[in-house]
Amino acid sequence: MTDQGELLRAFLDGRWAWVRDEVRDVLRDPLFAPVYDISVDEHRARVLEQARRIATTRGPRLLFSKDVGGEQEFGAAITAFETQALGDLSLLVKTGVQWGLFGGAIQHLGTSEHHQRYLPDVISLDLPGCFAMTETGHGSDVQSIRTTATYDAATREIVVHTPDDDARKDYIGNAARDGRMAVVFAQLRSKDTCHGVHAILVPIRDADGRPCPGVSIEDCGPKAGLNGVDNGRLAFNEVRVPRTALLDRYGSLAEDGTYSSPIESEGRRFFTMLGTLVQGRISVSGAAVSASKVALTIAIKYGLVRRQFKAPGTDDEVVVLDFLQHQRRLLPALASTYALHFAQEELIARAHEVFDGAGESTPDDDMARRKLETLAAGIKATTTWHATHAIQTCREACGGAGYLSVNRLPQLKADTDVFTTFEGDNTVLLQLVAKTLLTNYQADFGDLDPLQTARFVAEQVMETVIERTSARNIVQRLLDAVPGHDEEADLRDRGYQLSLFEWRERHVLDGLVRRLRAGIADGADAFDVFNSAQDHVLTAARAHVDRVVLEAFVNAIDRCEDPELTKLLDLVCDVHVLSHLERDRAWFLEHSRITPARGKAITTAVNTVCGELRPYAELLVDAFGIPDVVLSAPIALGDEAARQNAKRDPSATVQAQ
Amino acid sequence: MTDQGELLRAFLDGRWAWVRDEVRDVLRDPLFAPVYDISVDEHRARVLEQARRIATTRGPRLLFSKDVGGEQEFGAAITAFETQALGDLSLLVKTGVQWGLFGGAIQHLGTSEHHQRYLPDVISLDLPGCFAMTETGHGSDVQSIRTTATYDAATREIVVHTPDDDARKDYIGNAARDGRMAVVFAQLRSKDTCHGVHAILVPIRDADGRPCPGVSIEDCGPKAGLNGVDNGRLAFNEVRVPRTALLDRYGSLAEDGTYSSPIESEGRRFFTMLGTLVQGRISVSGAAVSASKVALTIAIKYGLVRRQFKAPGTDDEVVVLDFLQHQRRLLPALASTYALHFAQEELIARAHEVFDGAGESTPDDDMARRKLETLAAGIKATTTWHATHAIQTCREACGGAGYLSVNRLPQLKADTDVFTTFEGDNTVLLQLVAKTLLTNYQADFGDLDPLQTARFVAEQVMETVIERTSARNIVQRLLDAVPGHDEEADLRDRGYQLSLFEWRERHVLDGLVRRLRAGIADGADAFDVFNSAQDHVLTAARAHVDRVVLEAFVNAIDRCEDPELTKLLDLVCDVHVLSHLERDRAWFLEHSRITPARGKAITTAVNTVCGELRPYAELLVDAFGIPDVVLSAPIALGDEAARQNAKRDPSATVQAQ
Repeated sequence: MTDQGELLRAFLDGRWAWVRDEVRDVLRDPLFAPVYDISVDEHRARVLEQARRIATTRGPRLLFSKDVGGEQEFGAAITAFETQALGDLSLLVKTGVQWGLFGGAIQHLGTSEHHQRYLPDVISLDLPGCFAMTETGHGSDVQSIRTTATYDAATREIVVHTPDDDARKDYIGNAARDGRMAVVFAQLRSKDTCHGVHAILVPIRDADGRPCPGVSIEDCGPKAGLNGVDNGRLAFNEVRVPRTALLDRYGSLAEDGTYSSPIESEGRRFFTMLGTLVQGRISVSGAAVSASKVALTIAIKYGLVRRQFKAPGTDDEVVVLDFLQHQRRLLPALASTYALHFAQEELIARAHEVFDGAGESTPDDDMARRKLETLAAGIKATTTWHATHAIQTCREACGGAGYLSVNRLPQLKADTDVFTTFEGDNTVLLQLVAKTLLTNYQADFGDLDPLQTARFVAEQVMETVIERTSARNIVQRLLDAVPGHDEEADLRDRGYQLSLFEWRERHVLDGLVRRLRAGIADGADAFDVFNSAQDHVLTAARAHVDRVVLEAFVNAIDRCEDPELTKLLDLVCDVHVLSHLERDRAWFLEHSRITPARGKAITTAVNTVCGELRPYAELLVDAFGIPDVVLSAPIALGDEAARQNAKRDPSATVQAQ
Repeated sequence: MTDQGELLRAFLDGRWAWVRDEVRDVLRDPLFAPVYDISVDEHRARVLEQARRIATTRGPRLLFSKDVGGEQEFGAAITAFETQALGDLSLLVKTGVQWGLFGGAIQHLGTSEHHQRYLPDVISLDLPGCFAMTETGHGSDVQSIRTTATYDAATREIVVHTPDDDARKDYIGNAARDGRMAVVFAQLRSKDTCHGVHAILVPIRDADGRPCPGVSIEDCGPKAGLNGVDNGRLAFNEVRVPRTALLDRYGSLAEDGTYSSPIESEGRRFFTMLGTLVQGRISVSGAAVSASKVALTIAIKYGLVRRQFKAPGTDDEVVVLDFLQHQRRLLPALASTYALHFAQEELIARAHEVFDGAGESTPDDDMARRKLETLAAGIKATTTWHATHAIQTCREACGGAGYLSVNRLPQLKADTDVFTTFEGDNTVLLQLVAKTLLTNYQADFGDLDPLQTARFVAEQVMETVIERTSARNIVQRLLDAVPGHDEEADLRDRGYQLSLFEWRERHVLDGLVRRLRAGIADGADAFDVFNSAQDHVLTAARAHVDRVVLEAFVNAIDRCEDPELTKLLDLVCDVHVLSHLERDRAWFLEHSRITPARGKAITTAVNTVCGELRPYAELLVDAFGIPDVVLSAPIALGDEAARQNAKRDPSATVQAQ
C-alpha cells in the first residue's frame, strides 16, 4: 500500500486501531476463511469451533467487567466485533448472541451474584446461551409478549410457561443445537399482579445436550443466510426455576413474592431494561458497515481489472470502472460507506462514554442514554439498509461472477439481509427516532404509544431543537461561511451542504408537529392521525439521521491532520453528499430550497465528482484493511491469485482430456 | 374466490389462458413442490427429473415447428414458460436452456437438416444441450468473443478451439452435468478470412456422460441461487466437427471453404443471429413477473394475518397491512406487477406475430423485429429490476418469517438475482434501447458502437418519434381530453398521466440528441461524449419503457368489459402511476412540468390510493392463480395450513418432553 494508503488506513482504524489489528490477525487463520456449499450441520459445527477459538482471544473479555475476568473496554469490544464482521457473518451472529446478548443481558440486567456465578463460563463459552425475547406472535412489540413467569411463593420458584404457539420464543440463536441456558423474557407475575416484562435465566439443555424437562426445542430450519447459526424455537411447559433466576437489577421479588423496583413506572422500567438492546443495535450496525466494505472491495477491485467493449479507434477494451454508469453505481456507495464508518465510529465513542461511565442512573445519565438509544436506532436502520443496497449493487456490478458463491457476494447478501429486521425492525426503529425527536428527548425512548405521542406534541409548546453532534464547532464555522443567497453557494461548499441537511431536518420535523397537532385538534382518532402521517414520520427520522451522519463525516475530516488526506476525504464527502442530494432532490425542489436549474446541476456534479474519485477507488478500498484470506473472492485477488484459488478446489474440475 | 376474483383471474390469464391452466395442473404434482436445504447434487438430480416430466407435457412442443413434431404456437410457449416460473426457478432455467436456448438456436440458426436431425431429441430431452455463448472474458460484448472455428478444407471439418482461459465458455447451463451437445458461438474462419460470430454444434459428452476428446468441462460450483442448474465452463482443444455442424441459416461454407450469407453486412448478420436471443429475454422477463407475483402473494397474505401493536383504546392488535407504511411498501409493488403483467402480455403478443409470421426477411419484417428487440430489451430490464426490488421488499415486510427458507422468499430472492444479468445485462440492454430510439429504429438493434451512434445522431436531421403501442386510439382519446393547463388536471386523470410520461420521453430524448450533437460538434472524442452522457442515455431508455408500460396498462383497461373490474384496474393503475411519479417527481420538478405544490400532492395521493386499494389486496393476489403446492410458504397459507406444513418435516422438531 502507498504511504497515503497507510495513512488513510490508520485514520480509519482510529481510536481502537490495536483491536482491529488483533482481530485481523485472528482472522488470517485459515479456520476463519469464508466457506460455502457446506451443509447446515457442517456449517454449525464449524462456527462453534470458530467461536471456541474466539473465546480464547481477548475480544469477548473486552465486553465484561473486571470482577469476572473481563477488561470492560466497551468501545474496543464493539470495534473488535465490527472487525470480526469482515469474516463469516454466521460466526459473528453466533458470538454476538453468546457474548453480546446472552452475556450482555446477564451483565446489564443481573446483579453481582449472577455476574459471579455465570459470566466466567459465558466468557469461556463453557455455558453457551440464548437470548429468548422474540416470540412467534410478537417481534417488534416486545411489551406484548405472552410468555409468563409466575412466582410460586410456596416453593419459592418461578414458573415459566408458554401459553400457546404464538407465545413460543422464535428465531432464537444458539437454541437449536448448542444453547444450555436462556435469558427468557416473560411477563412476571406475583401475588396476582403482573409486573411487566422481566428476564429470567432458564436452563434449556442438560450437560448431555438433552432438552431439560418441560422445555421443547424446535429447529427453525434453513434460512436465507446465517446458516451457521442454530436458530430455534423454545416453548416452556410450566418450567420451574429458583427465585434467584430472575435477573433483578431493575425489579426483584422478595421470598413472599413482594415485588420491588428502583424504577417506579412500569413503562420506564421496561424501556430501561430494553435499553440493553442498544449494544446489539450498535453491533449490528458496525457489522453492516463492515459487510459493505467487503462487498465494495470485491466489486471495485473487479471493476478495475474487468474490461469490456473496445473504445472506438483503439484496440483496447475499456476497464469497466471507466464507464460513467459503473462509477455511478459503485462510487457513491463507497463514499457513503465512508460516511457511515465515521458515523459508526462516533456512535461507538458515545456508547463507550455512556456504558463505561455507567454508575447508578442519574437524570443526566438518563438523557445521555436516551440520546444514545436514538442515535443507535437511527444509525442501525441507515447502515443496514445501506448494506442491503450496496451489496446488491456490487453483486449486479460483478455480473455473472458476482453470482458465484466463490466470490463471496452471494453469502454477504444472504447473511446481511436480516440485519434490517433483527435487533429492531428498521421501520419501527425510525419511528422510535421520530418520536424521540418529537418529544425533544423528554420521554423515554419508545415509551409513548401513538396516542401519547400525539397528545404530547399537541400539548407541549415545543420548539424543535437540532441536537448537535460533537462536530458543533466546525459545523457552525462552516455554516457561518455560507453566502447569504443559496444560489451563490458552490454545490461543493460544505457549509452550504450542511445548511441544506439541517434546514430539511428542522422543516420536516416542524411540519410533522403541525400536522399531528392539527389532526388532534380536529378530533381525529390519534391512531389514524399518526398512521396517516407515517411516511412523514419516517422522512423526519431519515432527515435527522442523514444530518447526523454528515456531521460525523465533517467532524472526521476536521480531525485529519494530513493535507493530502484531507483533500481526498473532502472529495469522498462530496460524492456522498451530492449523490445523496441527487436522490432526495425532489424534496428540496418541492420546498423551493433549490431551483430546478440547481437540481439539474446536482446530477452533473455527481458525474464530475465520481470521475474525480475514480483514480482513488483502489486506495479507498485497500484502506479498509481486509485480510486476503477473508476477502477470498478470486475476482478481488487479481488474475493470478484468482486462478490459483480456482484450482484450489479439485472437485471443481469434472474431467478434462 | 369471489366472482370478481374469478373474473379478474380470467382477465389476467388472457389469450393463452388454456396453457396457464395446463401448466398449473402440472405444477400441482408434488414433484414440483419447492424445495430447500438439499445439496447441489440432489437439487440437480431433482431438476433433471422434473425436466423429464415437463418433456412429456405439451409445453416444449409449443415452441417448435410442426415438421419436427411441434405445435409452433410461440405466444402459448412463452406463456407456458412464464407460468412454470411460479415454481422452482432452477427448473425454469434448466428447461429454458434446453428448449429455449439450445433448441431455439437450432430452430432459428439452423436449417431443415439440423431441425430434422436434432430437434425431436431436443424436445424429448434425449439430447440435453447447452448454449455456449458467454466467455469468461466476454459477456455483454458477444461480438468480441475469442473462441475460434476454423474450417479445414482438407478434411472438410471445422476445428473449434479455445485460445486461452479468458475464451472459455463460462456460466453455461446444462454443461457441468447433463449436456451432451453444445451450440458453440465462435469466430468462423475459412480461407484465412474471419466471417464473424457463428454457431456450431459440438458434441461435448458421449453416451456414457464422459467429456468428448478435446473438451474440458469445469463445474462453476455453487451459486447464490439456481443451484439446480449445472452451470459449467467449456474449453475446446482443437475439437473437430463436420462442416455440417455449422448452423448455417445466415452463413454457410461450401466444401472448399467459400463462405456465403444471405446477409451482406457482417454487423447486420451478427445482430440478426443474435436476434434469436430475444426469445430468451422475453422468457426471463415473464419469469421475473411471475416471481414477483409469488413473492407479493406471500407477503400480502402474511400482512393480512400478522398483527402487531395494539391500536390505542382497543384490545385488538393492528393487522400490519393497515399500517400506512406497510401499504406503501407492498401495494405500489403489487400495482406495478400488474402493469408489467400487461406489458409482458403485449410483448408476447407482438413476439407471437413476428415469430409465427416469420418467413424470409423483408424490410417490414426487419423493422418489426427491431421494434420487438427494443421492446424486449426494455421490458426485460424493467421486469427483472422490478423483481429484484419487489422480492427484497417482500422479504423485509415479512420480518424474520421472510428470512426462513420454508417461506420461499429467500430462494425467490437468490434465484431471481441473476435475472438482471443474464440474457443481457440490464444496463447494457437499456443502452441498446436508447441507441435504437436515437436512430429512430433505422439501424439494426445494437449495431452501432458509441462512435457510430454519435455520428448518426449528429448527421441525421432526425425528429424524435414516439413509437406508439397498439394502445394508440385509446391513448390519443385520453390525451385529447386533458384540460389545457396542467394544474387544472386531476392527478388521477389518465390522460394527464399519459401526457406526463409521453412529454418526459420526448424531452429526455431530444435533450440527449442535442447533447450528443453538441459534443461531436465540439470535436470531443466520441467515446467520451457518449460515456459522459451515460446517465442521460439510461434515463431516456427508462422514460421510453415507462411510457410503453403505462400504455399497455391503459390498453388492458380499455379491453376490460366488466365495469366493476374496470374500476378496480383503474385504481391499480393509479397506484402504479402515482407511486412511479412520486419516485421520479424530481425530474418533472426540474423541468418545471409540475409545481412544487403538485409534487407534494403526489405524495399525498399515493397515501390515498394505497388506502383505497387496501381492501382489494387479497383479491388482487388471488387472481394470480398460484397453486398452493407451489406457493407453499406456511405464512401465506393461513394459520392452520401453516402449522400442518411446519409439522410435515419431522426433522424440524429436535426433541420435546
